[in-house]
Amino acid sequence: MPPADTVADSAPAVTLATIQDAAGLLDGVIIQTPCLPAPRLSALTGANVWVKYENMQAVGSFKERGAFIKLASLTAAERDGGVAAMSAGNHAQAVAYHATRLGIRATIVMPERTPMVKVSATEAHGARVVLAGETIAESAIHCAELVARDGLTLIHPYDDNDIIRGQGTVGLEMMAAAPDLDMIVVPIGGGGLIAGTAIAAQGIKPGVRMIGVEAALYPSATAALERRDGQCGGSTIAEGIAVKTVGTRTLPIIDERVERIVLVDEPHLERAVNAYITLQKTMAEGAGAAGLAAMLADPSFFAGQNVGLVLCGGNIDPRILASIMVRELARQGRIISLEANYADEPGLLARLTTAIGAAGGNILDVSHNRLDLTHLARETSIRLVIETRDDSHTARVVAAVQATGLAARLTGHVDGGF
Amino acid sequence: MPPADTVADSAPAVTLATIQDAAGLLDGVIIQTPCLPAPRLSALTGANVWVKYENMQAVGSFKERGAFIKLASLTAAERDGGVAAMSAGNHAQAVAYHATRLGIRATIVMPERTPMVKVSATEAHGARVVLAGETIAESAIHCAELVARDGLTLIHPYDDNDIIRGQGTVGLEMMAAAPDLDMIVVPIGGGGLIAGTAIAAQGIKPGVRMIGVEAALYPSATAALERRDGQCGGSTIAEGIAVKTVGTRTLPIIDERVERIVLVDEPHLERAVNAYITLQKTMAEGAGAAGLAAMLADPSFFAGQNVGLVLCGGNIDPRILASIMVRELARQGRIISLEANYADEPGLLARLTTAIGAAGGNILDVSHNRLDLTHLARETSIRLVIETRDDSHTARVVAAVQATGLAARLTGHVDGGF
Repeated sequence: MPPADTVADSAPAVTLATIQDAAGLLDGVIIQTPCLPAPRLSALTGANVWVKYENMQAVGSFKERGAFIKLASLTAAERDGGVAAMSAGNHAQAVAYHATRLGIRATIVMPERTPMVKVSATEAHGARVVLAGETIAESAIHCAELVARDGLTLIHPYDDNDIIRGQGTVGLEMMAAAPDLDMIVVPIGGGGLIAGTAIAAQGIKPGVRMIGVEAALYPSATAALERRDGQCGGSTIAEGIAVKTVGTRTLPIIDERVERIVLVDEPHLERAVNAYITLQKTMAEGAGAAGLAAMLADPSFFAGQNVGLVLCGGNIDPRILASIMVRELARQGRIISLEANYADEPGLLARLTTAIGAAGGNILDVSHNRLDLTHLARETSIRLVIETRDDSHTARVVAAVQATGLAARLTGHVDGGF
Repeated sequence: MPPADTVADSAPAVTLATIQDAAGLLDGVIIQTPCLPAPRLSALTGANVWVKYENMQAVGSFKERGAFIKLASLTAAERDGGVAAMSAGNHAQAVAYHATRLGIRATIVMPERTPMVKVSATEAHGARVVLAGETIAESAIHCAELVARDGLTLIHPYDDNDIIRGQGTVGLEMMAAAPDLDMIVVPIGGGGLIAGTAIAAQGIKPGVRMIGVEAALYPSATAALERRDGQCGGSTIAEGIAVKTVGTRTLPIIDERVERIVLVDEPHLERAVNAYITLQKTMAEGAGAAGLAAMLADPSFFAGQNVGLVLCGGNIDPRILASIMVRELARQGRIISLEANYADEPGLLARLTTAIGAAGGNILDVSHNRLDLTHLARETSIRLVIETRDDSHTARVVAAVQATGLAARLTGHVDGGF
């Protein structure tokens, strides 16, 4: 394990006391987000679930905490010189937001293909955005060059003791709101959030068990703890924790304090995002839902425990969220597709749609196929996408169609056009 | 104005003191939901916005408050006899949930066409559900018959002093969390929430201004205050406040204490639901977003004020929510449709899609039309639905297609298949 002092850092090691100091600095600056019982998630998982809603911060994630503490700790000369950060995500917005409020010039480096909405959101917080690099690694190199050339101070997203103690204030607030917690489940990207939270929570209650979560496609902390190379890559909805290298400062803390790291696959991440929105009425990005995904992936590990989930961010693309919600409806059997071949004659489509309407099915889409060789030249095949109430209603809709004499078949549950 | 005593009711008139008593009864029973500043909604509206998150209650709405107070106030004989309620919505779930926890048998009458998910959710809370009546009015008659026949106690959704004082605890909590509020904006269905909240908030701070909101399609309180018949009807996403008759107890309180009722149309309700989810990371049903919709509809009225919004419920159908979100993306120019006629020859679709891909457009749907007489027999017309980043990106995608020599035209912003 690399010692924590292999990277130059002027801030002292993170302790409960330095986190408590950070909480004092954050008072009145950020929102003290709610940490509340979530009865419907408890019913879903079989544990007693509390949620810490960091998605309710002004920029939608916990990243404001560390960013503010780091910015507030700069010398006057460092402030005057300006700061830089490399991020296309929540760290960028947090640095931009608080630097502007503190009167510090901020330059944010993002990969060239970053969606315009993220660029605009960061610029709207008052930062200068530089698009450079095809990959995150290339952007990081460009950012380092900018820092050296222009005398900027780099605000690292996680590998910095001020960042770690800032994020640790999440743990203080959770233990104050829910002192009976047995476990706290925290997503791991670079590890700043779980490292700070662990020091704070275990400082207050030594027995509280810390559980980390990584996206299965990016198991960097798991691999580092096992002293092997992690295979990181692929498209995950948890892009906020899709980090290839865990921090040199955070890793020893994770090694010492985290009992287990759960790896979660994409279907569980999707289900967790959907459960947050449909059951708990709150919007989690993929990384923000990772803790709940871990509970869904391995419910017996958590059963009966008082479990605190850190919903660390809510910045998910609306189209991705809409897609996840509609796919879940399809999985529940509420959006189906039905196919029928019939003679290409007037009145048959009316007969079909009348039967579906009478059975209470809601037709979302109709498409014809006259070119397919699997049916006769004078026939056409039609595909209908239909919304139903549930599986038993689907069966009634299919029966109603078949009662018209048309040979319709259920061809599957579909995703509503996404 | 009808006097408050025209309906038999054993509970005393609602005052600040009876609401404070109710708060004592609710302590530890329901979640004391957060009431927090919403910086991004403040930026959107030009006011200083606070939100009371009643969507975070166990059943997703404020209705638990009044339902519990009413149930807790029943005599032993009334409890033994069981209770009934007529509702297909949040009141049904609230009564079912708390009756079951108190060991009281609950019968919920719902209209026959109520979606199965609502029936199942209410049954899951332990109530018996009776489907009766084509309309809400018919269901109400059936419910009254059941109450008379079986000796049940009716739990009215709003026209009851215990219900009103229960809902009023929302006002107590808001004034405790945000004593500087100038205005509180509350959706009006039957009026229980705004009546109780007004008595509580103005009891603590007499100058606080109460603003009501109704769906423009259901202006029943507005009409009643003007002593005329309201034209109520039509399909609204704010079905939780689509009430044709305001309460006889709530109306005089509204008349005395509410400064103004804002009517909001469906586009503003949709925009408000979308703003809650994309900016504030929280899920509001149409009725729950009505307060924000009022601010969007008439921002100058609220500008510069400290405004408290009651986000009264979050129980929106996921498909409706997904549709609202995707329609908003279309409005923002992020989902477009493009049409082109071209000779029906190999390779042309590849040329088209390659140009779009190179320009960074994401193709969501492709459809051909070979039958349309507006083009030549050897031509086909193709329609592409494409996701872009924003308007300027859309212009680049269209230019890239036109540079291939195909005569493509933007045919509008579409809703992504919903």
